[in-house]
Amino acid sequence: MAPPAAIEVNAVTDTTAITLPDPLKAPIPKSNDIYGRRRKADKSQWGTAAPADSANFRQGNYDDKPMARRWDHYLSNEARTRKGNNLKKAARFLGTPGLISLGGGLPSSEYFPFEELSIKVPTIGHFSEAETRESGVVITAGKNDLANDKSIFDIATAFNYGQGCGAAQLLRWITEHTELVHRPPYQDWRCTMSIGSTSGLDMAFRMLSRPGDMVLSEDYTFAAAVETALPMGLRLAGVPMDEQGLLPEAMDHILSTWDVSARGARKPHLLYTVPTGQNPTGATQSAERRREIYKVCQKHDIYIIEDEPYYFLQMAPYTSSSEPDPPQPSSHAEFLASLVPSFLSLDTDGRVMRLDSFSKVISPGSRIGWITASQQIVACYQKHADLSTQNPSGMSQLIVWKLLDEHWGHAGYLDWLIFIRKEYTRRRNVILGACEKYLPREVVSWKPPMAGMFHWMQIDYTKHPDYRTKTVEEIEESIFMRCIEEGALVMRGSWFYADPDEEHSTMFFRATYAAAEGHKIEEGVRRVGRAVRREFGLEE
Amino acid sequence: MAPPAAIEVNAVTDTTAITLPDPLKAPIPKSNDIYGRRRKADKSQWGTAAPADSANFRQGNYDDKPMARRWDHYLSNEARTRKGNNLKKAARFLGTPGLISLGGGLPSSEYFPFEELSIKVPTIGHFSEAETRESGVVITAGKNDLANDKSIFDIATAFNYGQGCGAAQLLRWITEHTELVHRPPYQDWRCTMSIGSTSGLDMAFRMLSRPGDMVLSEDYTFAAAVETALPMGLRLAGVPMDEQGLLPEAMDHILSTWDVSARGARKPHLLYTVPTGQNPTGATQSAERRREIYKVCQKHDIYIIEDEPYYFLQMAPYTSSSEPDPPQPSSHAEFLASLVPSFLSLDTDGRVMRLDSFSKVISPGSRIGWITASQQIVACYQKHADLSTQNPSGMSQLIVWKLLDEHWGHAGYLDWLIFIRKEYTRRRNVILGACEKYLPREVVSWKPPMAGMFHWMQIDYTKHPDYRTKTVEEIEESIFMRCIEEGALVMRGSWFYADPDEEHSTMFFRATYAAAEGHKIEEGVRRVGRAVRREFGLEE
Repeated sequence: MAPPAAIEVNAVTDTTAITLPDPLKAPIPKSNDIYGRRRKADKSQWGTAAPADSANFRQGNYDDKPMARRWDHYLSNEARTRKGNNLKKAARFLGTPGLISLGGGLPSSEYFPFEELSIKVPTIGHFSEAETRESGVVITAGKNDLANDKSIFDIATAFNYGQGCGAAQLLRWITEHTELVHRPPYQDWRCTMSIGSTSGLDMAFRMLSRPGDMVLSEDYTFAAAVETALPMGLRLAGVPMDEQGLLPEAMDHILSTWDVSARGARKPHLLYTVPTGQNPTGATQSAERRREIYKVCQKHDIYIIEDEPYYFLQMAPYTSSSEPDPPQPSSHAEFLASLVPSFLSLDTDGRVMRLDSFSKVISPGSRIGWITASQQIVACYQKHADLSTQNPSGMSQLIVWKLLDEHWGHAGYLDWLIFIRKEYTRRRNVILGACEKYLPREVVSWKPPMAGMFHWMQIDYTKHPDYRTKTVEEIEESIFMRCIEEGALVMRGSWFYADPDEEHSTMFFRATYAAAEGHKIEEGVRRVGRAVRREFGLEE
Repeated sequence: MAPPAAIEVNAVTDTTAITLPDPLKAPIPKSNDIYGRRRKADKSQWGTAAPADSANFRQGNYDDKPMARRWDHYLSNEARTRKGNNLKKAARFLGTPGLISLGGGLPSSEYFPFEELSIKVPTIGHFSEAETRESGVVITAGKNDLANDKSIFDIATAFNYGQGCGAAQLLRWITEHTELVHRPPYQDWRCTMSIGSTSGLDMAFRMLSRPGDMVLSEDYTFAAAVETALPMGLRLAGVPMDEQGLLPEAMDHILSTWDVSARGARKPHLLYTVPTGQNPTGATQSAERRREIYKVCQKHDIYIIEDEPYYFLQMAPYTSSSEPDPPQPSSHAEFLASLVPSFLSLDTDGRVMRLDSFSKVISPGSRIGWITASQQIVACYQKHADLSTQNPSGMSQLIVWKLLDEHWGHAGYLDWLIFIRKEYTRRRNVILGACEKYLPREVVSWKPPMAGMFHWMQIDYTKHPDYRTKTVEEIEESIFMRCIEEGALVMRGSWFYADPDEEHSTMFFRATYAAAEGHKIEEGVRRVGRAVRREFGLEE
């Protein structure tokens, strides 16, 4: 099966060679073939709270692919007994011609006090803040654009209630994007929106585990994942890692030698992993590493939760702060080919739930994410969403859809991703340059991150003056507080222990290069360097 | 303690006597005293993901009021063991002067592709769609309004991550509004945002119950509440009701004679109730009824979940379709005094969690609601939110805040509520007029709803030709399908059973007057009338 034509056709906009367009005349580039290949849809598909199925938005042919495995044996009581929303079932009658509904308790859009919504956004290729101020365009959604045939999405629709899967308009775009980037290799994959991956993980744990279970994860992991799991009676079992993340042999060993009574839990059946730019370690699993991990998961029938907020923040290898930036990809195909394949794209069994999010690439405040998984898992997720989180904010959905579908299109969005990846690469290089300059190599060591937002620094605490009298965590706290005194905040590694009860003999700090400006990153690292020197009694 | 001066000062805008203002010159009416009494706040309070506490936004003095009771004995394991988000604790160092944070993984707002956001909204007193098109004003949020001292809320802040309680800017407005309307009579009440009351209820059940529990509710209740409860291993125990909702004596009797083994559950300690314009019955509890229910709850130590989406849709009594509309309140004080007191406003014990929502009065798509409860309960809720739903969409929060705080102010919002209440009253009168005209009184009966969106029609199924051979639910289905054939969708009463396993000897249908236009409501009811006549073999 050929990849979607789109990714081979569209060259990346060369942002240096093109003069700024007149914003009023700038074309709206839907640009790539995906738009031409969309199925014609009845207008009612875009209506208020209309049901949507991402299967209708896929463009590839998956007939020769295997069906996903069934996961009944891992579904919780909660997930198995949830029947979904009764009243939403009445929606199936809404298609009846001429029907007058006195059914659903949806308020009339007449009483939404909003007539128009506008956002000023960058034109493609002119993405910086300064360029956006200069040449950005204002795009507007009217209240009744759908009824007036001006657009397929509007205030009257987006600002009303919706379905747990999110609005069809944005779900279509999300499904197409997922297909373009990951092309899952099984028949019945589906997408459904989440209100962000924190909520997605909360719902995944409730769906796929029961109290007392242990869940595999990287040895140091996203703190919120541990904190989400613990109150449900779950614990995380850390798998040893290197700079490429999880070690598959170690994982296989843990599973092959699992001792139920020693562990106090049945053998794990869930893996929670952040494969790219992992939080907190910054580690990125190579393609080969992912294949090996997937094989171990097949061997032990492990279901994988792939949490990938940083997927598009993959960078070129770091050489040194004085060398020029590596060249940008010359086409979208080259860009996509340069990305490490996701677990989703290797998932012949349908054993992956991938969590995607706009938080790191568009705006965390949108509170829009999505999951991709097999039909069975997505149906469970949607039923739960209908009865808890519902759909992401319709205000957010309208804003994001206007930008991504109606304004930028898929090609423009890939250009945007290439842009922010370049920006993050620059920021990473700044922090690495500062570390080389200011940190005492006698006690601090690191590997350059290949993706994401985090720089992970190991401390050789055995050289600390209190090494013999204090615990790892006590020394860590002392260094942390010294950094605060010096005027820099970095995160303590112990805050990221997968299993806080396990004894640790390593010490790390996490610094991010995402938030502060370049000169502040540099000054921050200088202060960390001074704090460490003072703590360890090193020369300044 | 005097009520806030505001509600006595501001007369309702007389929408007929004032000429339309020039939208560009229309003043932005912060109008009432609440604004003048706000505490001065340090600018950092409005910053990205800054922690907020609604206690700082209350204006009344609660020193002479009792503290809320503690609810430790009802908290679930999940709620008791949840420690909250470790990393957000690092936020307490962010106030350190001169500190450079390399800590939190917040993306830089530099990479949010949004420069400006504008909404066109009604000016106060000119609320209809037509007036908004004509005289609405465009209000705009810039990317860096906070840094540029143009506003205290902007894109850079709202579109980034936030705290589980929501942004301080909107939380302040919500707290003030809650105080203005409910003035809870105990010391340590707090507000925190939800992403809507469906999610609020999901989180409340997980906080306050354990599998196997039964929860009291109205005999016919919000279907989603039942469907949310069941997969958690909870069941609802319906309490008999009349047109004023729950019968307190019946509830007392159920609790006093609770038989653990017959019921298969410990004695309930939770009441889920929709006191105003209840869904599906439209019933509204009178003030006296609420006081009696509260007393029963005190007697049996019941914790109350008060779900109140329709609170402001309280109407004047229905007389007949030909009589003129009753006069509108002449002041905000009169308006607020005309509302049935909430459980929250009677809650001397702090035993109420009130769920509020913008869904029925601003826009469901905002996915912004809030809860009001004691500090202990609100703290539990926030910790859970931090690890699941997070804050409501920042895009929504910015839009709603711009409208309610910066544009309308509290007084303008009360005017808006008076406006939509009038509109819903008109709609209710249309459906009641149509019912009088088209429904066969031999088999259909109803009480005029006093609030909300729903009209509840009882069917005397004993007169149905299949009465002796079919169950209540079978006859109900037959009538339902006949309505569909005739081109009208109404909801089946059985979809709202609190306890689907219990046998029911009543039959109802729910119609809403919220969504369809007046002439469609009329035609819809005509069709229902024809369907019922045909089903029952009555003359047409």
